[in-house]
Order: sequence, then structure tokens, then C-alpha cells
Amino acid sequence: MAAKPKLHYPNGRGRMESVRWVLAAAGVEVSWLGWRRGEVPVVCWSALSPLGCLEGAVQGQTQFDEEFLETKDQLQKLQDGNHLLFQQVPMVEIDGMKLVQTRSILHYIADKHHLFGKDLKERTLIDMYVEGTLDLLELIIMHPFLKPDDQQKEVVNMAQKAIIRYFPVFEKVLRDHGQRFLVGNQLSLADIILLQTILALEEKIPNILSAFPHLQEFTVKISNIPTIKKFLEPGSKKKPPPDDIYVRTVYNLFMP
Amino acid sequence: MAAKPKLHYPNGRGRMESVRWVLAAAGVEVSWLGWRRGEVPVVCWSALSPLGCLEGAVQGQTQFDEEFLETKDQLQKLQDGNHLLFQQVPMVEIDGMKLVQTRSILHYIADKHHLFGKDLKERTLIDMYVEGTLDLLELIIMHPFLKPDDQQKEVVNMAQKAIIRYFPVFEKVLRDHGQRFLVGNQLSLADIILLQTILALEEKIPNILSAFPHLQEFTVKISNIPTIKKFLEPGSKKKPPPDDIYVRTVYNLFMP
Repeated sequence: MAAKPKLHYPNGRGRMESVRWVLAAAGVEVSWLGWRRGEVPVVCWSALSPLGCLEGAVQGQTQFDEEFLETKDQLQKLQDGNHLLFQQVPMVEIDGMKLVQTRSILHYIADKHHLFGKDLKERTLIDMYVEGTLDLLELIIMHPFLKPDDQQKEVVNMAQKAIIRYFPVFEKVLRDHGQRFLVGNQLSLADIILLQTILALEEKIPNILSAFPHLQEFTVKISNIPTIKKFLEPGSKKKPPPDDIYVRTVYNLFMP
Repeated sequence: MAAKPKLHYPNGRGRMESVRWVLAAAGVEVSWLGWRRGEVPVVCWSALSPLGCLEGAVQGQTQFDEEFLETKDQLQKLQDGNHLLFQQVPMVEIDGMKLVQTRSILHYIADKHHLFGKDLKERTLIDMYVEGTLDLLELIIMHPFLKPDDQQKEVVNMAQKAIIRYFPVFEKVLRDHGQRFLVGNQLSLADIILLQTILALEEKIPNILSAFPHLQEFTVKISNIPTIKKFLEPGSKKKPPPDDIYVRTVYNLFMP
């Protein structure tokens, strides 16, 4: 069995949280099934999955280790050792590579775990949905680093963006095709990043989905996929909302 | 033959310029060769290309049309007609789709034209190189919209980022493998976006490559690929550096 992925980032959400979500949602711990290195186990998400179903395999999640960056020295050490291609984290050690750049990491994991559609057309739809959702998620990621006076205003801005620009698109997609997942009747990177973003927004704006019944249903259904359900339970590697300690750690690490 | 791609954006570089670059570099005008709809013609970039070579096909470029946005009404019309998934441009009509989100558009074209490597490992390297380069290019794209006082400071900042963070990576890659292209001995999205970024930076900082001999050589060689050479000649669809008219158009279009 290949070594577990190792994530290098501060102990908080930031740009790494999407990677944690996708690894958790995608993967299964299947060492007990005797998979050989390089094989890609696939979970049976639903009876409709064209990829088949591994009985019992939904019990676990892709295991990953985390190296939490807390000091400038730790970051410097990674930089000096040429472990960070562009001197930045997130960085993920996986399959003998040291991946950087959030999107590239997400794409690699999605490709490896069949979360990128069955053809180029599906892939492109997934890519567009993910890119739109990441634009919205970026506002949430940056929010704790705004001045206190700007934070409340920004909550209004992100609510407007979500309600006017992004959620209507996904509501319509789900309504029109009547399926559980956004693309190709099968779990993809787009579903995972959208669920992550919805739940993060709901922490700030609890009724954000009130005008979007199909997104409400989507949220419940995707949250109940076994690997995701597990990730949403206490004790998982999902990180809590950013607090003062996280904000201070990030400032200490990355400010000159 | 499929309809020509149609690009919707203001008449200037911005986020669309990379798309113009990749379409120009990737493509060939092969209607005279009698290609059927859906087939993907491939140019012989070098004798080493594993994809084969179409004699004479390097004469042309992928033709594309442009619909330049100049007024808020034009943008509103696209939005009202549901032509923009997230109400934003760039938008590219291609192969029956209306693609949005810069990266998704680039990825689609790169996939279609075999500019994304031969396997997942090469793809991931290309993706990382592109993402890093786009971070640098983003500084260049935003530069004309800074306050005049901040513009000179920002030139210093982008020079530092280029010289300290990004160019050393690509210099080392080229030096270590001794090949013409960044990945897999074959033209990829990474080469195209890097050349675009280098040339845009050189407009502001002419000696930006002085410490990077391999990148100098790379710039010359990639610039001489026939389709790219043509794109760099006067009369192509490459856009000039942003001027006051472009900046005013963008403000008028996108500011509330």
C-alpha cells in the first residue's frame, strides 16, 4: 500500500480545508482488502455508480497525516529543503510527489479518485462549477483576516454573491436534471467543494439556503455519503471555524 | 469543420489574453485539409513530438472570433440571456458550450489540443507550473487598475516575485532536464502561459531575465514555434499593453 498522504499547513482551514474534504470524501482505507500499490479503490456511492461497488469499503476514509506549521522556522525549513516548489503552502506529499497550489492538489486527487467526470465535457462542467465555487469560498477564507469593521460588511457581500450569483446556478442544475449530484449522476469534485462552501457559509448565515430547496436537499444527501458523514462527525480531521489563535498563527507564519 | 470559437471580453488583455495565447499556439486552421467535425488536428512542434506531424499544418492558427464588450448594455444582454454561467466574462463559445472561468477555459483548450501532458503525473506538473505562473500573471493583470502612486511600487513587487519565487523554479527545470519544453519534451499549457507572462513582464522590466540564461533561451525557442511566432507578429489577435481606454472601458463595464 502506498504511504499515506501528508499535508503541510497550519492547524486550521485556510486553503488546505478543501484538500482535507476531498481526501476524506474520495477515499477509503482499504489496506485490509489487500490493494496493491497504485490501484485505485472506488467506493459505491450509490446504486447508480457506473464504477461499481466495493462491499464494506465505505467504512473508512483515506487516511492522511498532517504536519502543522506553527513557526516561521518550520516554514523556513521546508523552503530551505526545496520541499515547496513556489515557497508556499499548502503542500501535500502524495504518491512520491510534493504537490503545491491548491487547485493542482485538488485536481490530482480528483483525477486519482474518479471525481472528475467520465469525459472531457463532464470534466469541463465540473471544472467550471469548482472554479465558481472556489471564487465564493475565497471570500470565506479571507474573511477572518479583514479588519473587524470590515468583517460584518463582508458577510453581507458574501451572502449577496452566494444568493445572487452562485447558488441560483446550482439550484437550477439540480432542479433541471433531478439527480443527486451536480454532474453525471455521480459524486465529483464539484459536489464536494460546493458542500464545503455551503456548510462554511451556513456557519455565518444560518438561513443562507432558505430560497434554495434543491440545494437544501443536496446538502442533506451529500452530507450523508458515508465517508463525508464520517468527516462531519466529531473527531475527524475537519477543522473548526478560524479563531484568534489560527489568525495569529497565520500572521506570524506568513507576514514578513 | 466545427464553428470557430467566439471570445466575449473587452478589447484588451485582461483575463482573456491567456485564452487567446493558447488558442493561437495550439491550433491550426485546417479547413483546407478537410478535417471532420470533432477531430483534433495536431501540429508537429518538433521532431520529437510523439503525436506525429501534419505537413503544412503549421501554416495557420486556430481561427477565433471576438465579440468585444464595450458597454454595460452589452454585458447585461449576455447576462439576461443566460449566456454567462456566473454572470461574468471571460466567456468562450466553443464546441457547442459556453465556457466561463479563465482556468476552466484554458484547461478545456489544453485538453482538446494535447497540451496537458501524456499522463497524470505530467498533467499535474503542468497544472502546478501553470497555477504558479498564473499567480504571477495576476499581478500583471491587476497592475493598470492600481492607483498611480501604487503602480511603481507594484512593479518592484512583481519583479521580486518573478526573480525570487517563480523564475528560479523554471530556470532549474530547464537546466536540469536540458529540454526545450518544461514538461515531457513537448509543448504544453505551461510553456505557453510562462512565455506570455515573461513577455508581459519584459514590457515593464526589460532585463527581468538577465540572471536566467535558460529562460532566455526558452523565450527565444518557444517564440519561434510557427503558430506562436505568427501570434507575436503585427496584425495577430494578440492585444497591446493596457492603455487608458482599456482601463476606462473595464471600469465602465464592471463597476456598479
